[in-house]
Amino acid sequence: MIAIYPGSFDPPTLGHIDIIHRAMGIATTLIVAVAINPAKSLMFSPDERVEMLAAICKGMPNVQVTQFSGLLVDFARAQGAKAIIRGLRAVSDFEYEFQMALANRLMDDSIETLFISTNAQYSCLSSSLVKEIAKLGGDPSAMVHKIVLNKMLQKSAGL
Amino acid sequence: MIAIYPGSFDPPTLGHIDIIHRAMGIATTLIVAVAINPAKSLMFSPDERVEMLAAICKGMPNVQVTQFSGLLVDFARAQGAKAIIRGLRAVSDFEYEFQMALANRLMDDSIETLFISTNAQYSCLSSSLVKEIAKLGGDPSAMVHKIVLNKMLQKSAGL
Amino acid sequence: MIAIYPGSFDPPTLGHIDIIHRAMGIATTLIVAVAINPAKSLMFSPDERVEMLAAICKGMPNVQVTQFSGLLVDFARAQGAKAIIRGLRAVSDFEYEFQMALANRLMDDSIETLFISTNAQYSCLSSSLVKEIAKLGGDPSAMVHKIVLNKMLQKSAGL
Amino acid sequence: MIAIYPGSFDPPTLGHIDIIHRAMGIATTLIVAVAINPAKSLMFSPDERVEMLAAICKGMPNVQVTQFSGLLVDFARAQGAKAIIRGLRAVSDFEYEFQMALANRLMDDSIETLFISTNAQYSCLSSSLVKEIAKLGGDPSAMVHKIVLNKMLQKSAGL
Amino acid sequence: MIAIYPGSFDPPTLGHIDIIHRAMGIATTLIVAVAINPAKSLMFSPDERVEMLAAICKGMPNVQVTQFSGLLVDFARAQGAKAIIRGLRAVSDFEYEFQMALANRLMDDSIETLFISTNAQYSCLSSSLVKEIAKLGGDPSAMVHKIVLNKMLQKSAGL
Amino acid sequence: MIAIYPGSFDPPTLGHIDIIHRAMGIATTLIVAVAINPAKSLMFSPDERVEMLAAICKGMPNVQVTQFSGLLVDFARAQGAKAIIRGLRAVSDFEYEFQMALANRLMDDSIETLFISTNAQYSCLSSSLVKEIAKLGGDPSAMVHKIVLNKMLQKSAGL
Repeated sequence: MIAIYPGSFDPPTLGHIDIIHRAMGIATTLIVAVAINPAKSLMFSPDERVEMLAAICKGMPNVQVTQFSGLLVDFARAQGAKAIIRGLRAVSDFEYEFQMALANRLMDDSIETLFISTNAQYSCLSSSLVKEIAKLGGDPSAMVHKIVLNKMLQKSAGL
Repeated sequence: MIAIYPGSFDPPTLGHIDIIHRAMGIATTLIVAVAINPAKSLMFSPDERVEMLAAICKGMPNVQVTQFSGLLVDFARAQGAKAIIRGLRAVSDFEYEFQMALANRLMDDSIETLFISTNAQYSCLSSSLVKEIAKLGGDPSAMVHKIVLNKMLQKSAGL
Repeated sequence: MIAIYPGSFDPPTLGHIDIIHRAMGIATTLIVAVAINPAKSLMFSPDERVEMLAAICKGMPNVQVTQFSGLLVDFARAQGAKAIIRGLRAVSDFEYEFQMALANRLMDDSIETLFISTNAQYSCLSSSLVKEIAKLGGDPSAMVHKIVLNKMLQKSAGL
Repeated sequence: MIAIYPGSFDPPTLGHIDIIHRAMGIATTLIVAVAINPAKSLMFSPDERVEMLAAICKGMPNVQVTQFSGLLVDFARAQGAKAIIRGLRAVSDFEYEFQMALANRLMDDSIETLFISTNAQYSCLSSSLVKEIAKLGGDPSAMVHKIVLNKMLQKSAGL
Repeated sequence: MIAIYPGSFDPPTLGHIDIIHRAMGIATTLIVAVAINPAKSLMFSPDERVEMLAAICKGMPNVQVTQFSGLLVDFARAQGAKAIIRGLRAVSDFEYEFQMALANRLMDDSIETLFISTNAQYSCLSSSLVKEIAKLGGDPSAMVHKIVLNKMLQKSAGL
Repeated sequence: MIAIYPGSFDPPTLGHIDIIHRAMGIATTLIVAVAINPAKSLMFSPDERVEMLAAICKGMPNVQVTQFSGLLVDFARAQGAKAIIRGLRAVSDFEYEFQMALANRLMDDSIETLFISTNAQYSCLSSSLVKEIAKLGGDPSAMVHKIVLNKMLQKSAGL
């Protein structure tokens, strides 16, 4: 079974990586797919986000990292995917994710959304939290992979 | 009993129309009221939204479509309405709607908010979802009335 | 519009009475309907609950109090009711009530469930809480009408 | 990937069958597993529940129906399953399911719980609702498979 | 400030002990109070629960363990407590706890309920889960203190 | 025990003041701390918000009002605070607050977040609601202290 794990990943957190580890045990091929969203103001470009994720997932044989634009279900169908993977942390997540799953199903009922709960210790993590903490001078090293931490330090040093 | 069904309706979805159908069986007169909100960046002007809703509600004898600005309770009182109708889809809706109902009650305790649950098949629909899907090149025809679909196509063609 | 306000009312709380006051402004006739549920172990018999509610609602011209067994939608249809009134206090309420509203709609789509939010000061009240507090030796006089308080005192005195 | 879909299924609803259809597209082998719970007072015996599900799933080549007792993770491990499938209807479901998923993970971190959202039109269904409606003289034929409906009618006729 | 941490503690979990550790840093004196509830069918007697908690809290200088019956606010007032401590794990917890806090405030507005979130890794634990797992032949040793584990083993061995 | 009550307070509502009253009974010293957030577009400057809160809290002997920038846990540690106070109104609040509490704990496990439920009558209030109502020409005098009301009137009069 081919599965897609889509997201903004701006930047990827340890919670995202936990979901990748869990989903790669379920899928034959797991495609981690960085959403290109020109409207959102993000910290990293799609290429940078793909690059960080690819570096982190090196050595995971059935994981591929790529980027996509347009509708998620169109991308999933084109990849021959049967499932979309979504991580769940809490109720507010759940509500939004539930609505998106039903909306995606309305557009293509042959692709199923599978929800996986994040490891409890990562249940408070989000990309926005990581960016907020960094902006306020805090140290997000317990929240992101060291590859991401280095990229964030380079970014804030203007490199 | 005169009831108000207020909203942004930018654009109206099949979920909104489902609520109109349900509320017109409860109220003697149902006033569908398009909120004029100069701050929000919207797809359609208040006049366009009123026009679409009026076209959809043509043939519903006890439904009127209009627009309003200012406080909802002031508008409701001026119309002699006893009730404000709100559709509910899910918990996040509920929380927000519950707070607004209590806030409106704080300002005028004689006007009651009546919540109606949307038909389950429309529970994932929202105006933002419809606009997001259209923007990403998807087909929202299962989510909006064909009058709205045509208006959206004209809009995106720059007509 | 005829509306039904169903419940166990074992006993009625000030929250229930708040909903009756609000609903009687919306409906032409409001039927407060005590559910006869032989399975549940309750404090008051259906007749006692009807009697308390009737005493409380005396002087409300468009409110009737009665009891019913069987399916709520069957009772509502037999009364010519167009709406079922339900009070909402909080999210757990909402979830249950939402499911019941959809289930009732599945059985009869011509009867609508209207949710009304309880006055904030009564948002913690429930019949079980009132009974629990009385059982632990507390004073529920801020939670129930004095007619109910007297009946509870008589009950616990074995009268 | 072998997946387990566990439950009481007392009786199975159309919501359960919807989840089976969705999960069989994801798993190589899907084991529908009826929980034997001697403490709960149920309408059908484990054998009857397995029999109904087996009849419904006849013709689904990669679906097996069986029963289990003891801890779910022990059963899943013994079957070589990598995933436990759970259907989600609403937030109250989600909370409970989320806790169970974390608890199961605490006992065996190699087995993942995958949540699938039920089709919106079945989001109000539950086994208890079906039994409640039947007990009150209602017709649950829109909520269960006709094999289940017949078994329920036989049961209530004392056959 | 004297604070009460009330509960059934049947048995205490590692989540409860986490809350005790956190609350003892906030309060001058923390009274862990086992609720005597004759109606509930429990695994351990109030004396056994007090004994287990006292053994676990030995060496925590400002923690006392005791039992109480009747209304919590009456007990808190009699102890001169200014605060009731409650642990929060998830939304369903929150809803119930929120209602109880408002109800307690209705009875005595001078005693405040302070909610503390449980450590994420214990967010799935509850006394019922621990008992359920033990009953199904599972090993709850990652969920309870070894003093509790031993007591549970003795109990199930009929000692 | 020194406790921090942080917030934007743009402007403070009666709900905030209710929490201050409740928290000052729990803490030895309560520091009301206005967050300086250059990114957000706010109605009042940090100095104006401190000034309003200081005027309201005059006569509360153990309450100090100040402002802070950077990470909350760094500020709390520098003040020798053992607790962060947060008011809770509803579930959406709870989710966000719960995540922030866990995130703060991840950064400094020695500082505890204590949640206090707002008085029910203030459960619908928020700074944004107050500003929205004022912007739409409504009267927020039932929602804010008269010191705040006067400041808002001066502001909108361009003084």
